[in-house]
Order: sequence, then C-alpha cells, then structure tokens
Amino acid sequence: MVVQHQRPEQFVDAQAELRILPVAGIPEVHPGDDLPGLITKAAQDSGTGIQQLDVLVIAQKVVSKAEGCLVSLASVEPSVFARTWAEQWGKDPRHVEVVLREAARIVRMGPGILIAETKHGFVCANAGVDASNVAGEEMLCLLPPDPDASAARIVDGIRERLGAQVGVIISDTFGRAWRESHTNIAIGVAGMAPIRDYVGLSDPYGYELRVTTIADADELAGAAELVMGKIAKVPVAIVRGFQFTPAEGSARQLVRAPERDLFR
Amino acid sequence: MVVQHQRPEQFVDAQAELRILPVAGIPEVHPGDDLPGLITKAAQDSGTGIQQLDVLVIAQKVVSKAEGCLVSLASVEPSVFARTWAEQWGKDPRHVEVVLREAARIVRMGPGILIAETKHGFVCANAGVDASNVAGEEMLCLLPPDPDASAARIVDGIRERLGAQVGVIISDTFGRAWRESHTNIAIGVAGMAPIRDYVGLSDPYGYELRVTTIADADELAGAAELVMGKIAKVPVAIVRGFQFTPAEGSARQLVRAPERDLFR
Repeated sequence: MVVQHQRPEQFVDAQAELRILPVAGIPEVHPGDDLPGLITKAAQDSGTGIQQLDVLVIAQKVVSKAEGCLVSLASVEPSVFARTWAEQWGKDPRHVEVVLREAARIVRMGPGILIAETKHGFVCANAGVDASNVAGEEMLCLLPPDPDASAARIVDGIRERLGAQVGVIISDTFGRAWRESHTNIAIGVAGMAPIRDYVGLSDPYGYELRVTTIADADELAGAAELVMGKIAKVPVAIVRGFQFTPAEGSARQLVRAPERDLFR
Repeated sequence: MVVQHQRPEQFVDAQAELRILPVAGIPEVHPGDDLPGLITKAAQDSGTGIQQLDVLVIAQKVVSKAEGCLVSLASVEPSVFARTWAEQWGKDPRHVEVVLREAARIVRMGPGILIAETKHGFVCANAGVDASNVAGEEMLCLLPPDPDASAARIVDGIRERLGAQVGVIISDTFGRAWRESHTNIAIGVAGMAPIRDYVGLSDPYGYELRVTTIADADELAGAAELVMGKIAKVPVAIVRGFQFTPAEGSARQLVRAPERDLFR
C-alpha cells in the first residue's frame, strides 16, 4: 500500500467544511511518555474525542520530548569553529555546537543566521535545534531522528487504543526563502499521502494541469498551527472533515532532492 | 491605524475552533464584474453567509479576471530572448514573453523552469503568469497589479453591502525552495495584520522568544486552499472563528527585502 501521491481516484479536490480543533490539556511530556495515550486522554477529556479519519497534527516538540531528543548545554564541549562563530555573533558556543552536530550540511551562514540541512534533508534555521518551550534551563530540543517513523507509531497507537484510522502530521515552525515570518510545515507524516497530485488532469476549461501538486500535509500543518500557538501549551490539533484515503505516506516525499533544487 | 504586526495586546495565541467553509456557486468572473457582490450572493445562497470578523480567502484568479488582468497570446510578439529559451525547452515563446514582461528580475533559470521576482517582490515560477482555470484558448492570467489594494477594495465592498468588518486574503499557489509541491500563500491582505509577532514574549517556561513570528495570512491561505481545490471552481473560502483585531495590513509585509534574503 505505497501511494506516493494522492491521485484522482483517491483524493477530494475541494473539501467540504473543515474543522480545526485544538486539543488542550496535554500535560508536560517527559522522555518515555506514552504520547498516543496522552493525546487520546486529552482529546476525550476536552470533549473533542478522536474520530475515524481525523488528521492529528502534533507539534514536533512534544514528540521530541517523548523520545528524549533533548540535550543539556552543560554536557556540550564546543568545537573551535562553534566558538569562533558564536563569539562573532554573541551566541552560546555550546548551542552552536549542538546545531552543527545536528546539521548534515550548512546551506547559508548570514549575520547571526545559520541555515542548515538536517540529516532528514530539511532546510531550516539552526538545524531545527530550539530552546523554546522546553522545561529546565539550558536544555535544547532536537528534531526526532525519524519523524515519519514517529508519526507511524502514533497512527498505530491511536488505532490500538480506539480502533480509529487517523492521519498523523508532525509539524514544526520553519522560515522560508523570500518571505518574512514562519509557518508550520510537516516534518513527519503517516497514514496519509502528503501530496495531492493533479498532473495530467484537466481544469473545468479543458486545460491540462502539467505541474500542479498540492502539499496537503504542509497546508494542514499550517492550519493546525493557528489553534496551537506558541505560548498556550496546545501541542495538538485535530483537523476533522478532511477526506482522505488512508495510505502510507511520509514527509520525506516533501523534501526536494538537492539535484532538483535551485536554491540549495 | 497602521499595525505592522499583531502584538500581544491584539492577537490570540492559540485560537479556539476554526471552521473552513467553501463558498460554492460563484459564476465565471469577467472583467469589470463586481466581485464583492458575487461573493456576497454566493455566500448567502450557499447558506454560509458572511459574518462579522470572518476572514475571506479569495483565489487570485477570480480577482485577476474581475480586474481584467488577462492577455491573449495572439496579441504577443515574443522577443529574441523569449524565442531562444522557449525553443530550448519546448515552450510557447509568446507565453515566455508574457512571463518576462511580468518579471522585475529573473531569480533562477533551470531546465524549463523560470523563477522570477514579480514587480510586487514575490518570488515564484513564471512571475505568476498562468494558463489554468482561464476561459478561452490561448489566454493567460496575470497577477493583479496591486493585490493589497484589490483586497482592500473587497473589504470595503463587503462592509458597504453587509456592514460586516472582514479580513480579506488573496491567495495564489506558489512553489517553495527546498520542498516539493506547492501551497497557497497570501499575495494580498487587507483588514487584518498578516503576521503574529511573539518577539520579546516569554513561553510558559520563561524562555524569551527572540525571533518567532507567524505568518497568519499564509497559514490561513493554505487552510482555505484545502476546501478550494483546483478543479471544482470554488475560488472563495471563509475562515470562521479566527479571532483578530481589524487593522491595516498588507501582503507586502510578508515580502522579505532582498538585502535580508539569503536565497535571492
């Protein structure tokens, strides 16, 4: 059941009404915690519940915390390069060192800005290393090593608990080229295809769409961010009413291969 | 009442439930048509209506059609450069010529791919020139010359008709660096701030957010795309329940200045 993209027989072009529902009441997440269990309980307690074919959008940070993807700055010995660059821009050299360790490649270094390609192939600031919304001083949060696998485990965990087939998107807040500000995008996907593929279909005027695909998973991640925010400790949202065909799928499909990328 | 970004006293960190409602029944749009009138009627006929503080997301194409931003290929005499490149990649030289006329600058030329900066500062494929969802053979659709002004006229038009204050986002489907596929983003905004600004606020753990801003307008445009699609002729969606403070705002605020852009 490997579906690279959603094709016409599987996707709904224009969805009916969607509801974007915040899931409040998830407690502080610690390494080893049962995230599907915490999400199920919070959704039930908040009255939202989880229904068949809901899409669960989950902030990367709680996934990383549950998986123990945390580093204490006190444990980090910075390299000469990390010290040099950190000193130049008034940064903590241990933080820079963790960023460099998470990076597969530096894509750009600007004034105090480090854009890196992560081991997953994501291009983002600081290789996804972040100190916000983490308990404890001097703790950094890293991206999960395999966010698609993390998402798949949550799909399975929800099915085991509730018998419901859901899509799961793990989201993070990334900047973009050319545009100010940030949006949430998908870094992990399971249970659904991340891309809706119109190539070869015709529009209502008979014009053949030759390149149009839509990154459903990224649009769903952004929509969910609106109810999650950055301060309110709402790390999960449910998108209800999004019609999709359960399928294998992954956020890897959203990573442009370097040889196809004019901006890497 | 110029608000660059939404600041804490004006924005809601994590929204309550959002509804994303498609507005079906908008007829084919022609140059000179009264778009606020067509949208109001379709929203009323579909039972959705338009309410105070709804956000209307409107596909660029119907805005461009109403404003007559259409070019017939028959009227276009291609330049030598357009002919050369078109021949190399099997494209229509008149189409390439229109793209070049719409471009302020070419950002990248890849194999059959032309990424341009538009006169508005948007970076996108083919300077936003598109042949899909346009009536008539050999017609191209251009971006509106000032999409923020287009959005502001629609805000005014809705207020005049219904007395309702709404936010308006004009959206288009753009590719991205580093990631496959496309998402809808905001090319015009009015009636609301496009960006939610957390800089200087603290997260629940006391960590000061130093760079976090969220492009609400882009996330809303992407959310709305999910119910608009590409084939079903649903060019308008309403986001209901998004709490915002009416404000001047523009999509220009989302354009990164070239001197701040590491990827242009």
